[in-house]
Amino acid sequence: MHIKKGKGIIMNIKLIHFTPLGVADLAISKCWDKKKDTIDIDRIYRVANKNKHSSTIEHIVYSFDVDGISRACLQELARHRIASLSVKSTRYTLKELKDEKCFNVYSDLDRAGKYCVLTYNEIVDEQIVRSLEGLRQCLAYGVSNDIAKYCLPESYKTSLVLTINARSLQNFLSLRSSKAALWEMRELASAIFAKIPQKHRFLFEEFVDETN
Amino acid sequence: MHIKKGKGIIMNIKLIHFTPLGVADLAISKCWDKKKDTIDIDRIYRVANKNKHSSTIEHIVYSFDVDGISRACLQELARHRIASLSVKSTRYTLKELKDEKCFNVYSDLDRAGKYCVLTYNEIVDEQIVRSLEGLRQCLAYGVSNDIAKYCLPESYKTSLVLTINARSLQNFLSLRSSKAALWEMRELASAIFAKIPQKHRFLFEEFVDETN
Amino acid sequence: MHIKKGKGIIMNIKLIHFTPLGVADLAISKCWDKKKDTIDIDRIYRVANKNKHSSTIEHIVYSFDVDGISRACLQELARHRIASLSVKSTRYTLKELKDEKCFNVYSDLDRAGKYCVLTYNEIVDEQIVRSLEGLRQCLAYGVSNDIAKYCLPESYKTSLVLTINARSLQNFLSLRSSKAALWEMRELASAIFAKIPQKHRFLFEEFVDETN
Amino acid sequence: MHIKKGKGIIMNIKLIHFTPLGVADLAISKCWDKKKDTIDIDRIYRVANKNKHSSTIEHIVYSFDVDGISRACLQELARHRIASLSVKSTRYTLKELKDEKCFNVYSDLDRAGKYCVLTYNEIVDEQIVRSLEGLRQCLAYGVSNDIAKYCLPESYKTSLVLTINARSLQNFLSLRSSKAALWEMRELASAIFAKIPQKHRFLFEEFVDETN
Repeated sequence: MHIKKGKGIIMNIKLIHFTPLGVADLAISKCWDKKKDTIDIDRIYRVANKNKHSSTIEHIVYSFDVDGISRACLQELARHRIASLSVKSTRYTLKELKDEKCFNVYSDLDRAGKYCVLTYNEIVDEQIVRSLEGLRQCLAYGVSNDIAKYCLPESYKTSLVLTINARSLQNFLSLRSSKAALWEMRELASAIFAKIPQKHRFLFEEFVDETN
Repeated sequence: MHIKKGKGIIMNIKLIHFTPLGVADLAISKCWDKKKDTIDIDRIYRVANKNKHSSTIEHIVYSFDVDGISRACLQELARHRIASLSVKSTRYTLKELKDEKCFNVYSDLDRAGKYCVLTYNEIVDEQIVRSLEGLRQCLAYGVSNDIAKYCLPESYKTSLVLTINARSLQNFLSLRSSKAALWEMRELASAIFAKIPQKHRFLFEEFVDETN
Repeated sequence: MHIKKGKGIIMNIKLIHFTPLGVADLAISKCWDKKKDTIDIDRIYRVANKNKHSSTIEHIVYSFDVDGISRACLQELARHRIASLSVKSTRYTLKELKDEKCFNVYSDLDRAGKYCVLTYNEIVDEQIVRSLEGLRQCLAYGVSNDIAKYCLPESYKTSLVLTINARSLQNFLSLRSSKAALWEMRELASAIFAKIPQKHRFLFEEFVDETN
Repeated sequence: MHIKKGKGIIMNIKLIHFTPLGVADLAISKCWDKKKDTIDIDRIYRVANKNKHSSTIEHIVYSFDVDGISRACLQELARHRIASLSVKSTRYTLKELKDEKCFNVYSDLDRAGKYCVLTYNEIVDEQIVRSLEGLRQCLAYGVSNDIAKYCLPESYKTSLVLTINARSLQNFLSLRSSKAALWEMRELASAIFAKIPQKHRFLFEEFVDETN
């Protein structure tokens, strides 16, 4: 397995806001008109996860600051339609490369890692640096972002805010923590799960495949 | 206009959670990669409302405790599909009527108002009380909720948690504060708007028709 | 079990349009870039149902003309958010009752059955006719639809066009053919399933609980 | 403007299925309970476009075979969440490059055009061919698709089935035919519009900016 945890992948995930569990607890109370004085975690688990009355946890919403995933990863992330994404636009930001110095395939891997997700496969990473340098040259030459972006390698890093409710997040974690998922998506699923508040973990644990 | 504000309608709306504006501000920063130290309200307004880049405010999510609207009103509310509702189920809670004493059309209007939204049209309200009493008798007679609910009048009150993002809420307020909307929906739109935090009002003001 | 199939329930479901399976077959071909000359039913079943790559059957869309279900049933149907509904509006059509003669509880059950779903529980049906007659009087008296509708019994019949894709329909059938579902919803699920083209049945059979 | 219509862009759009207008006409009839013997185009236009009762045209669904757009274009297309996409997976199909001969920057532009959308900007296209060749070498060397795809240029062509209803398609055309849209998205919007059946055009004409 080529992922070097804590070394290679430098994605940075922060949880910037979340709804407290009390809102789901109140939502569940409404359905059966049974209130409780304290939040009943067991009832939330039973209703939402065991009895699959999942709409009751749509009220719990998480907003993540997701930084440093590749646009290859974004291609897959954006397919989760029950979520809101605000993403760094290459059309408006690609000029950031203009002021960079030339990227040398043999000596500038680290510097390239600021812009691209590296794979730790030597020949792929070399090609990524070459593509990045090609892109830089296009921009330095004055090509507009909208044209230059056609030679952007999919390893190019992006940044976004992701807002997703607990039901959709269960689905995301289930699909993307699986061994069948793309390695960077697995890493993203794992990093997102790690940022879920301790008290909310019981909603997601059974959806995360941690064997990989 | 038959709505007697502050008297007739006894719906009770509470805002139980909301996302701070900073999350939308960060989301907007991402798109153009331009950060600010303080939250830029003008920029949020310009991007989301003026330039219709509305997905940037999907990150702002409100959860309301909505109590005392009619099931007639629920019929319309539930048609807003980009929202999450957890609603008091008549199938599980109708037995609440069982222990009530008989409802008299002429003397129990107030007591009926605990269960039904009244219209302040005398002949309609009388019929509502008659229907409520008919329903009570069915339940007292031992009819199951699932059968008895077929004679439930649509004025019957319900209770729910509504979670909706700012973009969908703009759409809701625009459609439901309009003169063309059902009077109780207008009342609901107005009551929800009144609970939006002062600092968030700028997002919604232009969508609310306050002439009615 | 109180449903008298073919007698009591007079809902009328017609399939008015559907997408041929070839579109899902092409969609699946795209993912793996493997085309076939003939439609491969086994592959659709394997990909969509066995391997849960359900988005591939979202391309298959059904439009139903649903006539004669109650507004109690509509309350639940409208909660399926991944679907499109165009529904007869009580706000615009309730005046249809105006020209009716008085409904007598003991002799006009059949005539009431034109407007309301009957339950074949005697005391509930009597109450339904009483409510219908009360509503008729309000309208005859000149009360506007928007006020009169507050005494509408939930058994009142509605009519709609429902458009739903195969993935969402699997979910609908699974939830609504269950013993736990409301009896009229089970009837609706069963009636919808009966109208699915024979060649498409393999997609839905495992989601329909036919034991009830 | 660098788009050479009919020359440069070789995207290929086919309409593979659509719902006839009669379904929207019936849907509209339902709301007001007013049937017509013939399809009333004027009423559809008035209700859906003029009066913005857009849900009535959600019943009209189009399925397109979209071939030869870039993954840069896919990044944007996939952000339209009210639509269904089944897309050629690079994870499963990238090996198609393995059997290709070396791509020469100066002589193989046409052959590269089979795999990549070209921009007709010389230095960008050269870089695209270089990236394509780099990718080919990685694959020839035995690198797995999941790693090799990180040096894929975003101009790489993809293929998909897109199913979208008329309401969402109005939104798509409005946003993506605009001068502010990415040139390839404008081209896609224009190509999709061109494939809409003549009889359905009246729904979309006002949403298409044809000045560019």
